Amino acid sequence: MSLLVTGSIGIDTVETPFGKRQDVIGGSAIYFSYAASFFTPVRLVGVVGEDWPGGHRELFKDRDVDTAGLEVRKGSKTFRWHGSYVENLNEAVTVEVDLNVLAERAPKIPANYLESKYVFLANTHPVLQQEMLASMKNPNLAVADTMNLWIQTEREQLCKLLSKIHGLVLNDGEARLLTEKKNLIEAARNVLKMGPKFVVIKKGEHGSLLASKDDTFVLPAFPADKVVDPTGAGDSFAGGMMGYLATQGNYSPATIKRALAFGTVVASFTIADFSLAGLQAATRDAIDQRWHDYKQAMSF
Amino acid sequence: MSLLVTGSIGIDTVETPFGKRQDVIGGSAIYFSYAASFFTPVRLVGVVGEDWPGGHRELFKDRDVDTAGLEVRKGSKTFRWHGSYVENLNEAVTVEVDLNVLAERAPKIPANYLESKYVFLANTHPVLQQEMLASMKNPNLAVADTMNLWIQTEREQLCKLLSKIHGLVLNDGEARLLTEKKNLIEAARNVLKMGPKFVVIKKGEHGSLLASKDDTFVLPAFPADKVVDPTGAGDSFAGGMMGYLATQGNYSPATIKRALAFGTVVASFTIADFSLAGLQAATRDAIDQRWHDYKQAMSF
Repeated sequence: MSLLVTGSIGIDTVETPFGKRQDVIGGSAIYFSYAASFFTPVRLVGVVGEDWPGGHRELFKDRDVDTAGLEVRKGSKTFRWHGSYVENLNEAVTVEVDLNVLAERAPKIPANYLESKYVFLANTHPVLQQEMLASMKNPNLAVADTMNLWIQTEREQLCKLLSKIHGLVLNDGEARLLTEKKNLIEAARNVLKMGPKFVVIKKGEHGSLLASKDDTFVLPAFPADKVVDPTGAGDSFAGGMMGYLATQGNYSPATIKRALAFGTVVASFTIADFSLAGLQAATRDAIDQRWHDYKQAMSF
Repeated sequence: MSLLVTGSIGIDTVETPFGKRQDVIGGSAIYFSYAASFFTPVRLVGVVGEDWPGGHRELFKDRDVDTAGLEVRKGSKTFRWHGSYVENLNEAVTVEVDLNVLAERAPKIPANYLESKYVFLANTHPVLQQEMLASMKNPNLAVADTMNLWIQTEREQLCKLLSKIHGLVLNDGEARLLTEKKNLIEAARNVLKMGPKFVVIKKGEHGSLLASKDDTFVLPAFPADKVVDPTGAGDSFAGGMMGYLATQGNYSPATIKRALAFGTVVASFTIADFSLAGLQAATRDAIDQRWHDYKQAMSF
């Protein structure tokens, strides 16, 4: 089933202990789309400026990603982010950020996308996320991501969004900020009181945690002895998770666990190289193989 | 099979967000012994001073813990530790520490303990750990813990110890300090080069990681929505792990995984209350039940 994603598309400059890459492709919707496309057709909604490099348009040519919703806006500039993981591979320091086109009006969702049954609202202003969601015709599953900035400055709008979505994906620091609870299990349960049927807390190198009314589930990260560039790991995780869910049509605890495990494994490919190179080197077979290895390593 | 443990026995004062407890029982060997005794008979070797409260002698009366190796030394004072988790439940701030009797000569190992097949050398000076180990007659499995202090000040002696033991248990910060590697998988593999056949890295609320020549295994912590007092969690983990291993007589990857899972579950009882109260409220049946719940939650 088709999975719609809206989110950022950007040009990144990234520094890690393994080197520096200048003007590489990035953004939440890009990582999400690429990751999800291993599982299901993806519809990408996003906007870039006219500086968007031609080569980047070729990115999805071999993937089942519909880019009709990718608007190249005349007179605008693409979102740019420069981050450094040199001191700490678990947390980026933002060296510079230019919102550019992301600070303008949202991209239009193509009419044929509006009946998408699976929707992922990657991190952006919660008012925009609500507008996007409101325009969709009765999705089966709508999941959103968010970030510190909106928790701090747009809590009221974020709470409105939370009352309308099925699932929320956020990282540990964001969960603590949103709920003012240090214990992550307690934080997750408090998020559920705000509306979503389930919440996934991403803990970076420490894995992830899912909570729903009936289930609490923790998964470690895939053991990686070399993290080259963690950019996009969380978005790839969400992409793998949602991509798998879109193929299943049910949200049983077992299905959701398997989906989280796919997200975990897909993210492990992302972090093995800079920008999208790790995902580009992956195949569905390699993902399935690693998923089975991971499942095996978890069982006792 | 009998499991011998040597380590600290102390009187603790502990502050956490849930309150303060003054002059409660503590020490690595105490937590380890209590935890391991759910699985196998334990032989405790340690030394306290004549201030050791009479009530504490009753501690193991219903447990299969042989305290013939617990020396109450005339003219000496018991080890005391005062720690606070008020700011951070994941890491204690030491308010005050008095080594007292721990700075004197080591306790004598009773002659009938010397043939113990399972030995755990809880954290103490690596020269003492080597002496203890040298006095044992060919144990099947000898595992040690250590701490930052010895890594920084007694690296040479610690390396000698590492070349003589089967397994090392330490926490994430210690593993990074010992190997100068930030990535924990890489750190674990570097520890293996120092001698041990396996290494277990404890990550507190983030679970644990085991590495051996053929296996890398990560386990999340048991999801706990209330951590009252984390003191002794790592020692209880080691006690549950070693206690289970002592009943198995093999170290297959599957056995070691199950042992780590038992350690994880036993530690989850410890942190639910102050001092030993959490472990004292546990039963083998409750541990087994939680182990099965945990195993179930891990499988997908």
